Amino acid sequence: MAKELKNLTKRADNYSQWYNDLVVKADLAELSPVRGCMIIKPYGYAIWEKMQQQLDKMFKQTGVQNAYFPLLIPKSFFSREAEHVAGFAKECAVVTHYRLRSTEDGTEVEVDPNAKLDEELIIRPTSETIIWNTYKNWIHSWRDLPILCNQWCNVMRWEMRTRPFLRTSEFLWQEGHTAHATKEEAEAKAQEMLKVYAEFAEKYMGVPVLQGVKSETERFAGALNTYTIEAMMQDGKALQSGTSHFLGQNFAKSFDVTYLNKENKPEYVWATSWGVSTRLMGALIMVHSDDNGLVLPPKLAPIQVVIIPINKGDEQLAQITAKLQPVIDQLRELGISVKYDDNTAKRPGFKFADYELKGVPVRLAMGGRDLENNTIEIMRRDTLEKENVSFDGIVERVKDMLEDIQKNIFEKARAYRDAHVYECDNYEEFKERVKNGGFFLCHWDGTAETEAKIKEETQATIRCVPFAYEQTPGVDMVSGKPAVARVIIARSY
Amino acid sequence: MAKELKNLTKRADNYSQWYNDLVVKADLAELSPVRGCMIIKPYGYAIWEKMQQQLDKMFKQTGVQNAYFPLLIPKSFFSREAEHVAGFAKECAVVTHYRLRSTEDGTEVEVDPNAKLDEELIIRPTSETIIWNTYKNWIHSWRDLPILCNQWCNVMRWEMRTRPFLRTSEFLWQEGHTAHATKEEAEAKAQEMLKVYAEFAEKYMGVPVLQGVKSETERFAGALNTYTIEAMMQDGKALQSGTSHFLGQNFAKSFDVTYLNKENKPEYVWATSWGVSTRLMGALIMVHSDDNGLVLPPKLAPIQVVIIPINKGDEQLAQITAKLQPVIDQLRELGISVKYDDNTAKRPGFKFADYELKGVPVRLAMGGRDLENNTIEIMRRDTLEKENVSFDGIVERVKDMLEDIQKNIFEKARAYRDAHVYECDNYEEFKERVKNGGFFLCHWDGTAETEAKIKEETQATIRCVPFAYEQTPGVDMVSGKPAVARVIIARSY
Repeated sequence: MAKELKNLTKRADNYSQWYNDLVVKADLAELSPVRGCMIIKPYGYAIWEKMQQQLDKMFKQTGVQNAYFPLLIPKSFFSREAEHVAGFAKECAVVTHYRLRSTEDGTEVEVDPNAKLDEELIIRPTSETIIWNTYKNWIHSWRDLPILCNQWCNVMRWEMRTRPFLRTSEFLWQEGHTAHATKEEAEAKAQEMLKVYAEFAEKYMGVPVLQGVKSETERFAGALNTYTIEAMMQDGKALQSGTSHFLGQNFAKSFDVTYLNKENKPEYVWATSWGVSTRLMGALIMVHSDDNGLVLPPKLAPIQVVIIPINKGDEQLAQITAKLQPVIDQLRELGISVKYDDNTAKRPGFKFADYELKGVPVRLAMGGRDLENNTIEIMRRDTLEKENVSFDGIVERVKDMLEDIQKNIFEKARAYRDAHVYECDNYEEFKERVKNGGFFLCHWDGTAETEAKIKEETQATIRCVPFAYEQTPGVDMVSGKPAVARVIIARSY
Repeated sequence: MAKELKNLTKRADNYSQWYNDLVVKADLAELSPVRGCMIIKPYGYAIWEKMQQQLDKMFKQTGVQNAYFPLLIPKSFFSREAEHVAGFAKECAVVTHYRLRSTEDGTEVEVDPNAKLDEELIIRPTSETIIWNTYKNWIHSWRDLPILCNQWCNVMRWEMRTRPFLRTSEFLWQEGHTAHATKEEAEAKAQEMLKVYAEFAEKYMGVPVLQGVKSETERFAGALNTYTIEAMMQDGKALQSGTSHFLGQNFAKSFDVTYLNKENKPEYVWATSWGVSTRLMGALIMVHSDDNGLVLPPKLAPIQVVIIPINKGDEQLAQITAKLQPVIDQLRELGISVKYDDNTAKRPGFKFADYELKGVPVRLAMGGRDLENNTIEIMRRDTLEKENVSFDGIVERVKDMLEDIQKNIFEKARAYRDAHVYECDNYEEFKERVKNGGFFLCHWDGTAETEAKIKEETQATIRCVPFAYEQTPGVDMVSGKPAVARVIIARSY
């Protein structure tokens, strides 16, 4: 077994360490010399690219177009929307100067104090401000609406505690920003994009999510409503995986964006914004993977099938390759990404462990005996089941298996999630049980005080008012007051 | 004719203003409130996306993988490679603080002086330093080589004079960074990527380019050799459209990156880097477009065919739509992007001018008489030729026309370029003629002094030692000394 694999921490021993280990050992990402910023390695980036491509396609199907807005935002823009600046001020990176110069002895460089900017610039933590400042020039009449823009970019939030993919100072994301003539249309768009996120998470990532709406405390800074998809990790903690915000007219008012309606009267424009980030990589890794390494959904796996010859000598390798070539060709014609690993510098055992670690969904292996018997070994990564099967019909078998794996890992994750959603209206019981993870469906009195108390005493937060569960009447488990909503409470990443 | 089009400056009147006008009027990009940074609008971004997709495919065919490295680079990294810092120090954006706070009266935000970084960070102007600092950990033995990484990202160079796409403080680009065991392999990779760029420019953008090598003065800061593709704009000026650098062992030495060779001895690693940017958009616009607006190559046009019904009343519109629908479907099945513009709020004349301005390669229009006669009007944007043709076989006709336009605009640009390459070995003549643009093929003595003199007296620079022209012996036109090379000299963007 490969050394890298042997050293992978077991989930049961330390789930958090298992995750950190896996990110590095599976070649997904590593820390950089810049505080809290990560380097996304080629294998990790290839997964992110597949996510991007699919999401981008789904966005465009809803009429969204891509654009690009500046990285740097004038500091003064943040003064305009009061809640927005309160939410982001503490985590900004500030550009103050624009030139370096050599020290007198020429061995170092320093910032040139004479090249100070008149107005400091902020590296975007999110782009509502600069985009609404731009929309002001794009929007004049109802004919200019709706505007449906998205950008794929990097953003910077100066986080104190960081973890690869889950929380990093710089991260990659997409941010959609739409402008509408009416409240109803904007609300509908915010909800539509949440559904796109949920569909992507479930159908492509194989990650079941609860859709819902955030409490006021947990809303995006400047939003009137924040919709969310919440996924459950294997330790029972929640991961907020995507959010879609109904922004009302807040940004339109702050940046004075009005349009002339059909009666030729000026009205403020209605807004949404919505985003998912490289954080999705964290969900993907944590939901499916096991003590042997990554488990990837076939639809997002950079390599869907690896084929390994197990040969004695070059002549047998040539025979095996000749036998396999039509299968490789046929799989590729079906659009399946195949890696044929005939690198003789590495032993088969090493390769087996390495591709398991990297989560390749299906592995085929063929040796001398298979050649004689017209058989081939097939292994599926999700269950680790291994079978020796007839070589005839192997293409069809692989294709079916990929589909089955995609379905199976989703069902498995959903069964796990559903088994860990608990109805609970007793606070003492809650406090005890929440330590072990899980989603708790509780009645809530709607106050920020109760929310704060729960967070302080249990580290758990209200994740959302979920759409999938019935809103029964009841009594708040903390205050004893009548409930205004039934919410999901959980510890989270 | 649409108002936007009427106001487009003519090329003959002011080529530079024509370009600036066109970028804005064709909805490609606009200036932002941040000095020298632009907003790329959806139509402009759609062209850039098509470029990216094709280039990315071509890179991957050469074995290159994408990755992502941090936006911010520790200041000290720039001290390590002396020429590199000299080249980039003056155009850096420097992050010094990481927090804002409200002023005492709460109306403004200011930078929190207590949140000063220990070491200032630079927004990447290019990523050699942080990438070679990373490669140190990735490279141990010859088995780890080559490394072939690319990243698509934003970079920042604090330019004093900016123009949309051609020179902006922030721009989008790709930067490839490869690491090799031998000098020969690295040199070959640098040249291979230049060929990829040249192929992309000519086959997809329809822009003929001269491939060549830069003089020492014009090299990338830290490179031993810089290869370039140079395109000629319609005013006869050169636009450097892509560069590929052989970096020798400079960065390996600065960041101490060695590998154990097959004899188990440590050796420094050899490097290349190569990049193209949103500057390519500038070349695309300037090479093909005319006084009516953009002319786009079909392979990169977001809309390849626009179809406009010219109807009297809703009933006729329904008839025209019914007749056209099979054509729309068939074109789309062929992978051709079609826009059917039946928006009744805009008049056909406005639409005609608008799609001309936006450079849509083929326009179809159908009115009542066409319906009766089983005909359709077809116009090609490159020549503005218009014909009334039989409706039968229109799909095939459109397909052929797209191919012909792609070919024609390249041939036209090549003929223009070739007609403006002059052999010249008389400096007085050169000084007079270079004012009118063109590429001058001149003998050069190889000294930086001569180069500086030419630049000072004529604003022209040595673009490259071109591969396509014979290296005949001769005498430097400025110094009268024996020449070491025959070079292309031109004014440039």
